[in-house]
Amino acid sequence: MIGKFIVIEGLEGAGKSTAIAQVIATLAQHGIENPQSTREPGGTPLAEQMRALVKQGHPDEPLTDMAELLLLYAARIQLVDNVIKPALVEGRWVVGDRHDMSSQAYQGGGRGFDQTLMENLRDTVLGDFRPDLTIYMDIDPVLGLQRARGRGELDRIEQMDIAFFERARERFLALCNNQPNVIIIDASQTLTQVTADLTQALQSWLEQQ
Amino acid sequence: MIGKFIVIEGLEGAGKSTAIAQVIATLAQHGIENPQSTREPGGTPLAEQMRALVKQGHPDEPLTDMAELLLLYAARIQLVDNVIKPALVEGRWVVGDRHDMSSQAYQGGGRGFDQTLMENLRDTVLGDFRPDLTIYMDIDPVLGLQRARGRGELDRIEQMDIAFFERARERFLALCNNQPNVIIIDASQTLTQVTADLTQALQSWLEQQ
Repeated sequence: MIGKFIVIEGLEGAGKSTAIAQVIATLAQHGIENPQSTREPGGTPLAEQMRALVKQGHPDEPLTDMAELLLLYAARIQLVDNVIKPALVEGRWVVGDRHDMSSQAYQGGGRGFDQTLMENLRDTVLGDFRPDLTIYMDIDPVLGLQRARGRGELDRIEQMDIAFFERARERFLALCNNQPNVIIIDASQTLTQVTADLTQALQSWLEQQ
Repeated sequence: MIGKFIVIEGLEGAGKSTAIAQVIATLAQHGIENPQSTREPGGTPLAEQMRALVKQGHPDEPLTDMAELLLLYAARIQLVDNVIKPALVEGRWVVGDRHDMSSQAYQGGGRGFDQTLMENLRDTVLGDFRPDLTIYMDIDPVLGLQRARGRGELDRIEQMDIAFFERARERFLALCNNQPNVIIIDASQTLTQVTADLTQALQSWLEQQ
């Protein structure tokens, strides 16, 4: 038996944490207990050190866009090789707070790295490893950032301007469009409606597995 | 006016530090004063943090070969963009203790990453940026490691077995073979002879510039 890898993606303030809790609850109702939770960037001791380099401000030296991109992939392969794949092989399910689509959206769409470069780097680092299901929580960044900013201090990425997040959202939507194994949730709705949509879509997907 | 980038490459114990001092002295004799010295991995505050992740042992979590490779390139682009290129643009010369050829040799040759992957990653990260001159200090790894081990404790890379360094040396030599702007020095000779060979070859190169 092998587990499955479900990823929740979305901009800041899209409600990913709430969605993750809902996913775990729905899995439990289907008899899938104790999934491995992950977050990216990070999720292992070494990957968390790489995350810190990406998230912290560096007043004395700019972190180049390319170094940021490489650190994100270094953190990702640590997590995939040392946590995600071993869990899946053991038969555990894995629920991820972000994965590769975030890099495609933020670094590809947001920072403007060429899409072929992004796809080549992904394939070089990850091979053909992909999530079994991606749940994308779609929100207008103006609304999302309002929500996120209510939570406290902003990290280096969250301080980017709104156009950066608009480009990231556009790339998220383009990547999700007509893809199998992707669920798009309208995260601008009320929490009750978001929860209902998410539960229904996930149950339907689980029944097909 | 633009400076030039001279890199000293070689295995542990090849005498790179002595060679760098000799290069700087020879440059001074040619009126090229105060070159920027760099070392890789590292050489900037952020790149030194990435270096530490590569060099330290990690008893709790293995650093994957791919994460190591990505960290090395993240450190390299920090150094190139924030130190080397600005120095060259100012007209300063740069003398580097290792650069990309070390990754090609250690990660490509030593770790066994596919050569096309290595070249693609180099081109993706560095574009067409290359040293103006590479001085490769060639030594049998058995002799080199004897010398290096006399200096004290070994880091994570230096603890690799002899076959790893044999593969790295083989790749170094293959990369240097018949290349313009590469000087190969037989570093197994006496210090006097190494110094004489290096000075003569560098002077000859400088006169052609």
